[in-house]
Amino acid sequence: MKGLLTLAFQFLFFLSYAQQNLVPYVRPLIGTEKMGHTFPGATVPFGAVQLSPDTDTISYERNGKYNGDVYRYCAGYKYEDKTIVGFSHTHFSGTGHSDLGDFLVMPTQGRLQLNPGVASDTKTGFRSAFSHDNEVAEAGYYRVKLDDDNILAELTATNRVGVHQYTFSKSDASHIILDMMAGIYNYDEKVVWTYIRVVNDTLVTGYRHTNGWARTRTEYFAMTFSKPFKSYGQQNFDKPQVYRGFWRKFDQNHNFPEIAGKRLRMHFDFDTQEGEKIKVKMALSPVSQQNALENMRAEATHWNFDGYKKQAQLQWNQELNKIQIEASENEKINFYTSLYHTFINPTVYMDVNGQYKGLDQDVHKAEGFTNYTTFSLWDTYRALHPFFNLVQPSRNNDMVASMMKHYDQSTLKMLPVWSHYANDNWCMSGYHSVSVLSDAIIKGVYKGDPMKALEACIATSNHRDYEGIGAYIDRGYIPAEQNGTSVSNTLEYAYDDWAIAQLAKKLGRSDVYETYQKRAQNWKNVFDNSIRFMRPRLADGSFKKDFDLLSTHGQGFIEGNSWNFSFFVPQDPQALMQAMGGAKIFAARLDTLFSMHLPDQFFAETEDITREGIIGGYIHGNEPAHHVAYLYNWAGQPWKTQARVRMILNMQYKPTSDGLGGNDDCGQMSAWYLFSSMGFYPVAPGSEVYALGSPLVKNAKIQLENGQSFTIEAINQSDKHVYVEKVLLNGKPVTNWQLSHADVLKGGKLTFYMSTKPARK
Amino acid sequence: MKGLLTLAFQFLFFLSYAQQNLVPYVRPLIGTEKMGHTFPGATVPFGAVQLSPDTDTISYERNGKYNGDVYRYCAGYKYEDKTIVGFSHTHFSGTGHSDLGDFLVMPTQGRLQLNPGVASDTKTGFRSAFSHDNEVAEAGYYRVKLDDDNILAELTATNRVGVHQYTFSKSDASHIILDMMAGIYNYDEKVVWTYIRVVNDTLVTGYRHTNGWARTRTEYFAMTFSKPFKSYGQQNFDKPQVYRGFWRKFDQNHNFPEIAGKRLRMHFDFDTQEGEKIKVKMALSPVSQQNALENMRAEATHWNFDGYKKQAQLQWNQELNKIQIEASENEKINFYTSLYHTFINPTVYMDVNGQYKGLDQDVHKAEGFTNYTTFSLWDTYRALHPFFNLVQPSRNNDMVASMMKHYDQSTLKMLPVWSHYANDNWCMSGYHSVSVLSDAIIKGVYKGDPMKALEACIATSNHRDYEGIGAYIDRGYIPAEQNGTSVSNTLEYAYDDWAIAQLAKKLGRSDVYETYQKRAQNWKNVFDNSIRFMRPRLADGSFKKDFDLLSTHGQGFIEGNSWNFSFFVPQDPQALMQAMGGAKIFAARLDTLFSMHLPDQFFAETEDITREGIIGGYIHGNEPAHHVAYLYNWAGQPWKTQARVRMILNMQYKPTSDGLGGNDDCGQMSAWYLFSSMGFYPVAPGSEVYALGSPLVKNAKIQLENGQSFTIEAINQSDKHVYVEKVLLNGKPVTNWQLSHADVLKGGKLTFYMSTKPARK
Repeated sequence: MKGLLTLAFQFLFFLSYAQQNLVPYVRPLIGTEKMGHTFPGATVPFGAVQLSPDTDTISYERNGKYNGDVYRYCAGYKYEDKTIVGFSHTHFSGTGHSDLGDFLVMPTQGRLQLNPGVASDTKTGFRSAFSHDNEVAEAGYYRVKLDDDNILAELTATNRVGVHQYTFSKSDASHIILDMMAGIYNYDEKVVWTYIRVVNDTLVTGYRHTNGWARTRTEYFAMTFSKPFKSYGQQNFDKPQVYRGFWRKFDQNHNFPEIAGKRLRMHFDFDTQEGEKIKVKMALSPVSQQNALENMRAEATHWNFDGYKKQAQLQWNQELNKIQIEASENEKINFYTSLYHTFINPTVYMDVNGQYKGLDQDVHKAEGFTNYTTFSLWDTYRALHPFFNLVQPSRNNDMVASMMKHYDQSTLKMLPVWSHYANDNWCMSGYHSVSVLSDAIIKGVYKGDPMKALEACIATSNHRDYEGIGAYIDRGYIPAEQNGTSVSNTLEYAYDDWAIAQLAKKLGRSDVYETYQKRAQNWKNVFDNSIRFMRPRLADGSFKKDFDLLSTHGQGFIEGNSWNFSFFVPQDPQALMQAMGGAKIFAARLDTLFSMHLPDQFFAETEDITREGIIGGYIHGNEPAHHVAYLYNWAGQPWKTQARVRMILNMQYKPTSDGLGGNDDCGQMSAWYLFSSMGFYPVAPGSEVYALGSPLVKNAKIQLENGQSFTIEAINQSDKHVYVEKVLLNGKPVTNWQLSHADVLKGGKLTFYMSTKPARK
Repeated sequence: MKGLLTLAFQFLFFLSYAQQNLVPYVRPLIGTEKMGHTFPGATVPFGAVQLSPDTDTISYERNGKYNGDVYRYCAGYKYEDKTIVGFSHTHFSGTGHSDLGDFLVMPTQGRLQLNPGVASDTKTGFRSAFSHDNEVAEAGYYRVKLDDDNILAELTATNRVGVHQYTFSKSDASHIILDMMAGIYNYDEKVVWTYIRVVNDTLVTGYRHTNGWARTRTEYFAMTFSKPFKSYGQQNFDKPQVYRGFWRKFDQNHNFPEIAGKRLRMHFDFDTQEGEKIKVKMALSPVSQQNALENMRAEATHWNFDGYKKQAQLQWNQELNKIQIEASENEKINFYTSLYHTFINPTVYMDVNGQYKGLDQDVHKAEGFTNYTTFSLWDTYRALHPFFNLVQPSRNNDMVASMMKHYDQSTLKMLPVWSHYANDNWCMSGYHSVSVLSDAIIKGVYKGDPMKALEACIATSNHRDYEGIGAYIDRGYIPAEQNGTSVSNTLEYAYDDWAIAQLAKKLGRSDVYETYQKRAQNWKNVFDNSIRFMRPRLADGSFKKDFDLLSTHGQGFIEGNSWNFSFFVPQDPQALMQAMGGAKIFAARLDTLFSMHLPDQFFAETEDITREGIIGGYIHGNEPAHHVAYLYNWAGQPWKTQARVRMILNMQYKPTSDGLGGNDDCGQMSAWYLFSSMGFYPVAPGSEVYALGSPLVKNAKIQLENGQSFTIEAINQSDKHVYVEKVLLNGKPVTNWQLSHADVLKGGKLTFYMSTKPARK
């Protein structure tokens, strides 16, 4: 019934809005090679399940040493690989660190093998060779032929249920393996505990508890088969256990339904006819097996695989149609794949009955909001959440509500830093939740209590024990002796403090505004006037002598160098420009950044930075400089912003598997593309002003949730018409190279007149 | 409010019934030495918390070999020990296998030590020496002076909350240690995971997941302190972990409130004045931290330690007064300590809001019953549950309801065998749940659906994969080749089948009755007519040649020998007697059993049998022969039953720490005492008939739940008046040495006329 209502609603939506079929422009394989760290599998928008192939069982270390897999295999899938180990149900999209990969399922035929084997010889285990020729990845659908046993594997998903369809050949030894040990960011003891119940010959439920990047994480499942298995069993790969109870009364390895342990793999066995399809549905829950079953009943009652696929693609079309564009085919592929990537994370982390696991490891019920998880905030505060404020304000409201619940449940009384699945891993730096809260409230998106949000921002930013905040408050900067990333931390805190100040101003809390406006100036304390670059500063007030402007390692900056980070004053480019010596010097330094050469040795030790993501010395493949191309506007040289933006759009985003110049970072890279290709960008979230650049599209129509639509039109658009001659908002000239969010909300049209020549005036 | 209502109710009860103060007769130290395996700590009747001292940290193995501690330390406390490690919150009472020991708390002063140290030198750790001279154990209260730091420790409890009171001397380094690694039946990897939140300076919550005798068990807690701690910290004794997240941003060992890991000990630090009392309350929950807090709020709001103690002892008095007796002081001590021991297990396993963890590891809500756990059914079906049918029928109804829920939640569709805390460890043999169900339904105690109960009995008894049931069904016995305890299994199944038959008869299911009445005869298939003993039988139908009647090891009997088990046909002593050769031979053989000598070597390999529990060849310290003394009644020699029973009562139960001749086994040994000392015993639960013996008391008045009371009176009672001259029920002679449960329920008086001489006639 619920499904029918959803369908009916979608049909109505379909009628009220001239939907295009945009799914063909989504290419999930983009970014799966080299640095993108995206996954090619099946998910619905913001779905709790991301069902995707894993091309290797990822280990943290080999021979006792860190082997880099934890970084390379963030998404479980590397386009470069020749084998698939199986299909697991949870994946990060584009991150720079890994986790998840729950409940890996793999179909095989013939001799039962419960080890994955090695990639160099797939006969050693249940993994299979595959070819990209036999692989199709679409929004909400994935298909691949598994060569070893000639099995066609197809995947689709609902919000909380992964749906598998395996086409077997004739055999009395067809198997579906459920690997409870496998995982992304795996190591011997990652799986803390596994519990499985074989309820009957088509239903299996259970959970596993992992100690991975998320320290304490439990995921529950309910798994159903379209056909009863004729037999089943398990192998426990843990070391033999001491005697505990009378388990020996049973043969626990064969057809025994109550299984538990640390290192388990199961198999379910079938007779199959030639071409017989066996379908598997796997529902997840963060709370309980019962809830997983309830999720299954609510979302996936039938066995029509194509029906699930259609439903998933209908959902994608609905979301993708929020922006309709005119552009070249390749640009449409880049655009809609970017849109797809921005609509994956954060993901729904809540059962259909509203229950979810809180940061405090207790079960909570979300009242009046959908709970989300996976907040890669150092990345996503920049453009992803501002993008959501534009096209997904209801969801961003819920995301902010989820962050506030995280705060409520935090014993430390901190907003999330990098949180996923009821944990905070505190990855990266800053307290950028405050930027997301501030931007959402200032743009009218967050419907919760803004005063409480402000209090959460204040508490988080005063957590003296956290990463030098105490020293930062006392001195106005973090001494280099105290912290390896003292400069970037100081810069990021200063920006975040400005965002808090803006929020306080909006809420009439002038006392808070004053305090934080003052803290927002702290970037000046790590600006070395003698060289006019950001530079590590010692406790005695002097700047660190031994210092390198180019190196991204050990110079006081997180994943970046001084050349890039010295531009990180998004809250006040004007003041930064003056500090650097005025508009001319500022622009010249930007020119140098984009035209210099950054030799490999300066970033060799920083995983997140590679040659592919660098233009001159400008590092686009990682986040800290994402606003930099727009800074020319402040220097009175907007045509350079326009040219740089178009260059970056063309160089860093390609419709190929290796098309992304850096980790997509839960959609931040893609959100940059989407804003920039429509001609504007939120340089400083917390401000409702966008900086104008140069649109790549010919036309983009944004369907707003308030019922209005806002259109961007580029007159005389072409690859060579990268410069903007003039801009009209609803027919009136825009002269300050700015666009306000309020104007967008009113609906209307922004018209760029494009030219092959810069409009220097 | 709830507390007030309970108090008010108790006050009314107090008025309506002339209560005696019976708490002084309860001596929890009885059975703590040698084989009793009882614990001396504080609990309320059937309480979810059993807060008790542990005298050693128990390890399963030393130097890679099983060291027996898992058996010796079932209760955590050994009277023989000289040191106390701390006070933990869950304990089995009298079992023959160990588990639990959750959340060990220990007060110390001076230098902080987070290792328990060794018993031979308490200065090596936080453990302390103690003396029994400074130890008081009462029902609901325990006190001991910890000599090392001169700290007085006092314990009491509510149903779900352990209450500690520690009296310190003056120090700026007083500590309360929370050891999350400690446990009974401990080994390195027993603790699968621990999670702790220091919510504020008086509140800590968390949970731990263990893989012990209960394979998958999670216990949650909320712990409050009467005084804010000035600092706190933890040590993680796990091996160093691989990098996972940015935890290094914090000093996790000191004053850091979000803690998790596998091997943790915490400390909370205080300044104390001379004689200052710090109190700690620890609430438990099987479900969540939130529920633990809710339990705390419902049961333990104040800080008046003496108030909790009074409340606990009021509850004990209420329960103990259900039977008022006249007897010697020592007999009263034995009687009320036995009553105390029968009212400990099973324990409440449910939060105040009705939620509990099910066997399926999901959270359930108990509707209309209180959920109980810890069912040591091989022991307790014999006399404990029948005793509950007499004096705790409401609770036994709930216990049966709990067992039915276990069945509902069982993937195997089996009633519990030996279940505790949402797990079945399948310890011992038989499917004696069916006896408990049958007895409760036949005696009108169980208010649930009896037909469903019968179905559960049928399903359990037809579980062909379990311990030879398949062969038993097919052949009528279990071949000795298949199973190491083939004879006792066959005998126990046959009795259980008879119990099912009785239930079926009661419910009018004659089809089922026929089937099971037939199965109940299966004991005959392992009875070797040539020697007239029970004997292992091979698949070919022949009896095993190499066979020893005396040995308790490897002869086909679980924890017993053929001499004892050959009498195990409680469902039909008449038929057994005939098989053995008639009344005379039968009685003579019973005589031999009680008068023979069983040399040590015949039971040296059976932990549960020791010299202390043996009279002649009769093994009272373990359960299988508990009905045997009553069998003389069938042989027409009731005076021998009378003499044997009085002898056992005197020899096997003493008011001393080593007073129990065997494991109390969750109250079964004590229930034997209680029945027998009142002059009757349920030889075959499932029948509503008791066999009469010889009362030890002068008078016993049983207050029944239906408002009636039933009195046993012994005229001319003395130590030498062990024989019964005649018996009157409400003035009418009883000549068949039987008493029916229905007659008891009507209320009235059973009068024994005692004599020094047997009434042979």
